[in-house]
Amino acid sequence: METLTINNVWMMICTALVFFMHLGFAFLEIGLTRQKNTMNILFKNIFIITVGLLLYCLVGFNLMYPGFAENSLGIFGFGGFGLSSPVVEGSLDLTYNKGYTYWTDFLFQGMFAATAATIVSGAVAERMKLGPFIIFTIIYVGFVYPIAGSWKWGGGFLHTLETPFYDFAGSTLVHSVGGWAAIVAVWLLGARIGKFKNGKTQAIPGHNIPIATAGVLILWLGWFGFNGGSVLSADPSSTSLTLVTTCLAAAAGGVLAFITSSILYKNYDLTMFLNGILGGLVGITAGADQMSPTDAIIIGSIAGILVVFAIAMVDKLKLDDPVGAIAVHLICGIWGTLAVGLLGNLAGIHQFASQCIGILTYALTCILSSFLIIFTLKKTIGIRVSEKEEIEGLDNAEHGINAYPEFRLNEQ
Amino acid sequence: METLTINNVWMMICTALVFFMHLGFAFLEIGLTRQKNTMNILFKNIFIITVGLLLYCLVGFNLMYPGFAENSLGIFGFGGFGLSSPVVEGSLDLTYNKGYTYWTDFLFQGMFAATAATIVSGAVAERMKLGPFIIFTIIYVGFVYPIAGSWKWGGGFLHTLETPFYDFAGSTLVHSVGGWAAIVAVWLLGARIGKFKNGKTQAIPGHNIPIATAGVLILWLGWFGFNGGSVLSADPSSTSLTLVTTCLAAAAGGVLAFITSSILYKNYDLTMFLNGILGGLVGITAGADQMSPTDAIIIGSIAGILVVFAIAMVDKLKLDDPVGAIAVHLICGIWGTLAVGLLGNLAGIHQFASQCIGILTYALTCILSSFLIIFTLKKTIGIRVSEKEEIEGLDNAEHGINAYPEFRLNEQ
Amino acid sequence: METLTINNVWMMICTALVFFMHLGFAFLEIGLTRQKNTMNILFKNIFIITVGLLLYCLVGFNLMYPGFAENSLGIFGFGGFGLSSPVVEGSLDLTYNKGYTYWTDFLFQGMFAATAATIVSGAVAERMKLGPFIIFTIIYVGFVYPIAGSWKWGGGFLHTLETPFYDFAGSTLVHSVGGWAAIVAVWLLGARIGKFKNGKTQAIPGHNIPIATAGVLILWLGWFGFNGGSVLSADPSSTSLTLVTTCLAAAAGGVLAFITSSILYKNYDLTMFLNGILGGLVGITAGADQMSPTDAIIIGSIAGILVVFAIAMVDKLKLDDPVGAIAVHLICGIWGTLAVGLLGNLAGIHQFASQCIGILTYALTCILSSFLIIFTLKKTIGIRVSEKEEIEGLDNAEHGINAYPEFRLNEQ
Repeated sequence: METLTINNVWMMICTALVFFMHLGFAFLEIGLTRQKNTMNILFKNIFIITVGLLLYCLVGFNLMYPGFAENSLGIFGFGGFGLSSPVVEGSLDLTYNKGYTYWTDFLFQGMFAATAATIVSGAVAERMKLGPFIIFTIIYVGFVYPIAGSWKWGGGFLHTLETPFYDFAGSTLVHSVGGWAAIVAVWLLGARIGKFKNGKTQAIPGHNIPIATAGVLILWLGWFGFNGGSVLSADPSSTSLTLVTTCLAAAAGGVLAFITSSILYKNYDLTMFLNGILGGLVGITAGADQMSPTDAIIIGSIAGILVVFAIAMVDKLKLDDPVGAIAVHLICGIWGTLAVGLLGNLAGIHQFASQCIGILTYALTCILSSFLIIFTLKKTIGIRVSEKEEIEGLDNAEHGINAYPEFRLNEQ
Repeated sequence: METLTINNVWMMICTALVFFMHLGFAFLEIGLTRQKNTMNILFKNIFIITVGLLLYCLVGFNLMYPGFAENSLGIFGFGGFGLSSPVVEGSLDLTYNKGYTYWTDFLFQGMFAATAATIVSGAVAERMKLGPFIIFTIIYVGFVYPIAGSWKWGGGFLHTLETPFYDFAGSTLVHSVGGWAAIVAVWLLGARIGKFKNGKTQAIPGHNIPIATAGVLILWLGWFGFNGGSVLSADPSSTSLTLVTTCLAAAAGGVLAFITSSILYKNYDLTMFLNGILGGLVGITAGADQMSPTDAIIIGSIAGILVVFAIAMVDKLKLDDPVGAIAVHLICGIWGTLAVGLLGNLAGIHQFASQCIGILTYALTCILSSFLIIFTLKKTIGIRVSEKEEIEGLDNAEHGINAYPEFRLNEQ
Repeated sequence: METLTINNVWMMICTALVFFMHLGFAFLEIGLTRQKNTMNILFKNIFIITVGLLLYCLVGFNLMYPGFAENSLGIFGFGGFGLSSPVVEGSLDLTYNKGYTYWTDFLFQGMFAATAATIVSGAVAERMKLGPFIIFTIIYVGFVYPIAGSWKWGGGFLHTLETPFYDFAGSTLVHSVGGWAAIVAVWLLGARIGKFKNGKTQAIPGHNIPIATAGVLILWLGWFGFNGGSVLSADPSSTSLTLVTTCLAAAAGGVLAFITSSILYKNYDLTMFLNGILGGLVGITAGADQMSPTDAIIIGSIAGILVVFAIAMVDKLKLDDPVGAIAVHLICGIWGTLAVGLLGNLAGIHQFASQCIGILTYALTCILSSFLIIFTLKKTIGIRVSEKEEIEGLDNAEHGINAYPEFRLNEQ
């Protein structure tokens, strides 16, 4: 009983920290974009966390942890609508798990669920219509994320491989799932007006860098819960190692991204430093509990370098990703997942093969499903605001109100 | 001993989270008002948290938890000035409570105390003089709040009703206590210049919506502690259920306020979404530990709808409440308190009657006491800044300094 | 095992809270300075936390907690490069400490390490070159801070005095260590252009007071972990008393600074209120676990009064400290350290003498080492940006980018 209580306290705190990441995402996204789309971005983020939570209650939790039937092949299961807490003699059955109660389980996982859509939100910022984004969010958070998640965390076929696919806290299950949809959405949506002029990439600076920086520090704080809670108990050895690897990877990612971008571009680029931190965090997420501090620094460093090159590559492919979501969440998510096969306790050829299987499975699933959803939306109601609306800003077009109505702005 | 340690850790974390709500309140209030009153609002909020804590140490805690004497009828008691920790053999008596130490008890309750005045602060923003607000705060936080609170949480007459009045974390004891004073203050103070022109309500947009949105997310985070800590232990079943009902009510409140306002006003109104989240949080607070997830979604949904109509009604009554404090804290506070008699474990006619008694008791007490204080201030030193000062802004008038001195502002 | 788990959970949460203080420092520093140096300040803060953590992993932790050799006199020891967790039968040795694991120990202490440089960052803001600041940070955080820290927290000669020097959470070891370097740096660097004109001090207002206020509230929140975690276990009596004394000192510091500055300057100065809160927090830090609530209010009150006079004195000495770092961290740090000999459980003439020895030791060490580093930098690569760069702003000069590119600014 006391053990459960301690574990459950830890898990509830981690839940709160993961919840707080939504402020981090919102701050990062508005900070790195233009003020004329701020209300729209805030709206999307608030929508995602509220609707995401309700959907996870209605269907998501029971799609993700269905208790697979024998003949399901670990591909699809559904435990029924809504929450149904296990009860013993009129009270909550506390033997549900030694690490948490049924309620904590739901809430912790529910806070994760909305993250995937948030990643997409950043990538499509400043030009996607609100209506279709809402529809995409509902389908992707409500159905794609939990079903895909069930294959590993729900005990599905990737978990029952001979050498099980390993993804501790979701480099693939959360970050790449968001990242793949981001790349598909960005591709179908096209670049913002003015991003690629005469074949050259134009920087579109974010309007509020203090807010963006705060977003990254809030996300780092939230990652204490994201990775720390993924231990699924308060086991002192595992939780504290996880926090150490998480923080060292974040630090190394930031520093290496800073160094790399200084060398390449001869300036002290704060945004690259910030993206490097996030890249390090995403990278360590798949194996945060299996790495030594040295491994963590290696993983973070490579993630930091990758972020800088990936951002350049995304630009070169004429994909317009205002917040660097593809580089951070997809590229570093893949790297972190592969790293589990290369470094740390699980490293080995069989593990590496399983990691590749997992990455490919999620790539196919997410590309396909997000393409189906977004392409259908594009061909029916349309996904992009008009040129006039885009130039005026989505705040005006979709919300009829300004985020900072009293401040004078520069002519554009 | 270990049980106490776990419980106490949880309560200390919840204390920290409730403390953090003061940043949430400050951000919400400045974000939804004009920049020319920003310093003033920040000053009030910092004043409230510091002075509130000192007053609660000096008198509040011992007014609220006096250990009522037999012949007190559970109406008034006072345990003496200052803190006096129970000591056994030179050390703190750890048998004080199984859920927390004496120190944690004081600090957790102290963090609650300042909240009531903060709610009023939002409602009177942009036109109330600082001096009288300070006097009001001292009396209301130092005396009215703890004495009124003692009637239920201190074991007073509302707690000893045959069917005790139930208010888990303070839909009435905190939020309505603030809300009633807000309505009285707003009425005695009058509307801001320009709010009601020729019988028509003019929107006065807030100057910094990202900050306001951050305020709401910080408040939501703080509510993990506000409600989660009101379990008064780390009991895994009760704390985790409370967090689930709290979050689901917040999400439902936001979504329903969004839907309602979209239907009524044909726009995507982020402010309504945010107020709906807060309404859901206030609504669930009275019975967060007694509701099922479904109950929580119902309570939150109704709170979200109520917020939209209540804001319209407050406008119609020509009451000028810049941040929607009356709708959020008073109306949803009443709704949440009634809901304990209608839904969840305690539902029943007797409980409903007790809830009505409680609501009426606090209504009378708070209206009367806040009227006495504010009316006296109005007739003596005056409560409203001059027209010139109001137009110039309170930052200039009261503080002689600007919150954003380098930014150019629009002509008004 | 359960006891370790609880303690370790508390210590991990405190670690997260101390980490979050870095956002508080960044917000305070940018809020109190001019927008044209915002990117630069954010960059420095992000640099400090990432590089600080990596350095603490590489050398700092093993310099600070070296396990002094017999003949070292408790002055210098080094446990080797990198982290080497104690292992028993292939698993982490959980008998390392009853309060935390090896990993938690490292991370909690690592989060402290960067703080000293952060304090300096505020004092030298708006005119110091980035390159030399980076070099200073690396030496000061990587070597000076941990070696000096080892003398007390690492069990060195100040800890083995007959009456050991006492510094619970670092009024001296953290705050004065930063503060002494701040005063040396400010002196060697000279004042910002325009700060002292014709012998008169000119106020240079901060550009974003809401952000600065948020910074202070985030720092206060972080202090729950800074002081609460310095108990080094979740001991319910000691941790909860520590939180109470911490919060009461903060509140008293703010209120007394407010009152003092109102009397002296006849205005309601929010910045003084905020600095008073920080002064109270720094002041209580040396003895937070040894004071009664009354002691804490006395310590905080005196700290609040001291801050107001110290800021005036620093100005009078023509030292230009944009954020009040010297007043807050150095003066209140010294006061708090002395207070341990005057108030609370340890008060006494012998303790007072030891406190003086400790203060003098750190004064000499920090003045000497920071002078050596910064003077060398000044004479070689130079420490100050050119006049042109300073007037344009460091964002432009060092980063080529603006923190708020879309907002129009006042002519200066």
